[in-house]
Amino acid sequence: MVKNNVSSAENLCENIRISKNGTLLFAGREAVEIIEKYGSPVFVFDEERVRENCRRYKTALREHFGADALPLYASKAASFKRIYEIIAEEGFGTDVVSSGEIYTAKLAGFPLERAYFHSNNKTDADIAYAIEEGVGCFVVDNVEELEVINAAALEKGKKQRVLLRLTPGIDPHTYAAVATGNVDSKFGSAIETGQAMKITGEALAMTGVELAGFHCHVGSQVFDADVFLKAADIMLRFIRDVKDEYGFECRELDLGGGFGVRYTDADPTLDVSEVIGQISERVKALSEKLGITLPKMRFEPGRSIVADACMTLYTVGTVKKIPGYKNYVSVDGGMTDNPRFALYGSKYTVALAKRMNDECDFKCSVVGRCCESGDILAEGVMLPSGIKRGDILAVFTTGAYNYSMSSNYNRVGRLPVVMIDKGGNDYVAVRRESLEDIARNDV
Amino acid sequence: MVKNNVSSAENLCENIRISKNGTLLFAGREAVEIIEKYGSPVFVFDEERVRENCRRYKTALREHFGADALPLYASKAASFKRIYEIIAEEGFGTDVVSSGEIYTAKLAGFPLERAYFHSNNKTDADIAYAIEEGVGCFVVDNVEELEVINAAALEKGKKQRVLLRLTPGIDPHTYAAVATGNVDSKFGSAIETGQAMKITGEALAMTGVELAGFHCHVGSQVFDADVFLKAADIMLRFIRDVKDEYGFECRELDLGGGFGVRYTDADPTLDVSEVIGQISERVKALSEKLGITLPKMRFEPGRSIVADACMTLYTVGTVKKIPGYKNYVSVDGGMTDNPRFALYGSKYTVALAKRMNDECDFKCSVVGRCCESGDILAEGVMLPSGIKRGDILAVFTTGAYNYSMSSNYNRVGRLPVVMIDKGGNDYVAVRRESLEDIARNDV
Repeated sequence: MVKNNVSSAENLCENIRISKNGTLLFAGREAVEIIEKYGSPVFVFDEERVRENCRRYKTALREHFGADALPLYASKAASFKRIYEIIAEEGFGTDVVSSGEIYTAKLAGFPLERAYFHSNNKTDADIAYAIEEGVGCFVVDNVEELEVINAAALEKGKKQRVLLRLTPGIDPHTYAAVATGNVDSKFGSAIETGQAMKITGEALAMTGVELAGFHCHVGSQVFDADVFLKAADIMLRFIRDVKDEYGFECRELDLGGGFGVRYTDADPTLDVSEVIGQISERVKALSEKLGITLPKMRFEPGRSIVADACMTLYTVGTVKKIPGYKNYVSVDGGMTDNPRFALYGSKYTVALAKRMNDECDFKCSVVGRCCESGDILAEGVMLPSGIKRGDILAVFTTGAYNYSMSSNYNRVGRLPVVMIDKGGNDYVAVRRESLEDIARNDV
Repeated sequence: MVKNNVSSAENLCENIRISKNGTLLFAGREAVEIIEKYGSPVFVFDEERVRENCRRYKTALREHFGADALPLYASKAASFKRIYEIIAEEGFGTDVVSSGEIYTAKLAGFPLERAYFHSNNKTDADIAYAIEEGVGCFVVDNVEELEVINAAALEKGKKQRVLLRLTPGIDPHTYAAVATGNVDSKFGSAIETGQAMKITGEALAMTGVELAGFHCHVGSQVFDADVFLKAADIMLRFIRDVKDEYGFECRELDLGGGFGVRYTDADPTLDVSEVIGQISERVKALSEKLGITLPKMRFEPGRSIVADACMTLYTVGTVKKIPGYKNYVSVDGGMTDNPRFALYGSKYTVALAKRMNDECDFKCSVVGRCCESGDILAEGVMLPSGIKRGDILAVFTTGAYNYSMSSNYNRVGRLPVVMIDKGGNDYVAVRRESLEDIARNDV
């Protein structure tokens, strides 16, 4: 019995269950009910799972670092009004990366003093807008924008709190390469080259900015503490060097995000508390050893807040069996709502919503509806044979970088986001794009 | 003197010129004037170049195949209202791949009897909409949709004209593999496996569809006739076999698109007339030899109609020099308006609009503003040293698959499309997305 994809769905996340009748339950609701009510295809979000994911970080940070540690939701993973409301209620801060994200957070009533403005290239307009709206902290990537922020703040009679984004890169003490956050990056200033020390001096000399500390980002799909520990070592030593050089005491250290999620059952499960606990031990011990004040810690989970809180439901259009070659199952979405296979070859788990207990002996590629051969959602997956036009296909763990990366390629409308709350009630968080929406700006 | 990118810009296309002052002229206008008037970043389209590209195909088809050959603009390359108006005026038909494209063509007053509806997965709603709106021809991909089209047409008392999309794949006569249009594809029915013959029989047996002929698509960035000739050989032999099998005379043969464009001066220049001429010779000779009626020919240029009719203008935000590593130039757009490097590693030619004659001795990667290390527009290109925040950077040949693939990733608004007409007048074809637009469907 080949049951790999279907049997593995239930193991991905607790919000995926199978009914006695062999149908897919998500967040306690029948998947088929949702698509029948809202149409196909559709993103289905589990509100309570978003909250649980938030609480894992809140609890771990409070336990290991105390009350002044703050988790920031990296909202580029999924940015729409309702998500900012939820994370605000959970006591999170947020990363924003554009005027568009700031605008949306503001629409949601998000307390912008808890917003951290990222990006390797903030435009003059972005900077003016963010200062005007009271964004609490800028994560400054480079000296050009530092100068613009300083000037814009001075003009408004403000002093803008900033962190400096650094690339820890090669540890000058151990010469061990850190997987990411590497020197050769479009982001930040490198410690190794002396550019980080230089921009620190420049920030400290400016009267329109208040340097609060430093930021780095260590990777993606990280499941253990290792790279965070390496990054922390480098960052804390840099903080000690800065203290020696300028007498500046760093008050905030942001170790970024990159916490992993389970896309398939080959992925491990992240233990947030354990990872944060290990980082805490290291940061506390090393701070003491280096004689520096323990900074307030910031972490930036994005993917791990929303990914497993969502699945996408599609309708099958075509089942193409090419004898001696391959089988293709086409659905009514694709790279327009999930470009991650096209971009990175990302893997996903798929299942048929009405046939969760059926034997999966049909090997196929699940492909999208776009006129593009790279429009693939999953390659070489197993589904029940007899799959046919009209069947409902679920793709799991689609909460991160799906809705947010959606396009209107082929002038296909973007999907709605339907939320299911703790009580099992469904509601619309983002409406489906209409034909009028797609052509709205055409003159 | 290293001048590779800048000196090569003028060789890309006749609409790129350099003024006496060393500034960039596009479609006869100063690039800097356009970005100053409309803001940054911006797509700038050369209307007359679109028309010239259309006329190249119109003229070649008329000359080599006569008046009943029809070029179809593959509008997924760039789909917005104004483009359908222009190609309608040039006497083109069009490919559409979704209800969204049909809706937009209709907005433009495009004569939908000249529209061909493609896609490997047309939904029931798409099919009903297309029949309702009088789309002239369906390019049927598979038997599932053929059945839906037949039923929908019968219900409306119509007989829907269709072509069947086939994958020529391996030539059963020569066993030479055709580069694309291969058997292992999500598109069409394979000739080799007998599936093409089978679906032809099914179509002929249906009373709601009128089979007009066959379609295939042979590749992408094709600069000579070779793959078209191979595909034509296979398709014409199939047409003969169909005649033998069912007594059906094919009236339309659509050999698809894939005509190449020059992204850098390493790319060759396509001679449309020569390629169409060679195809014509082969098709005429072989039709005669096989004893079949010469079908009406259809071709589907998309990229080669719009790509070199557009450039994107950005503003530089950051110039990051990492000693011993690499240099990065960040601009205020990126994978949100041009995901082609992220998706395929596509190459583009770049230049500084005010320094077109300056020596280019600064090797760098041009990267976007997104919080994503893969957000790259061009790698290892040469630009003038001293490039700085505020400089205007042009990326050429961006008319195809840039606007149409744009996203709101990072909640960055999509760019406007500004047209320059033959008289040198500028006008807006697509408005810039506002913050309100981005969050319009958020509840």
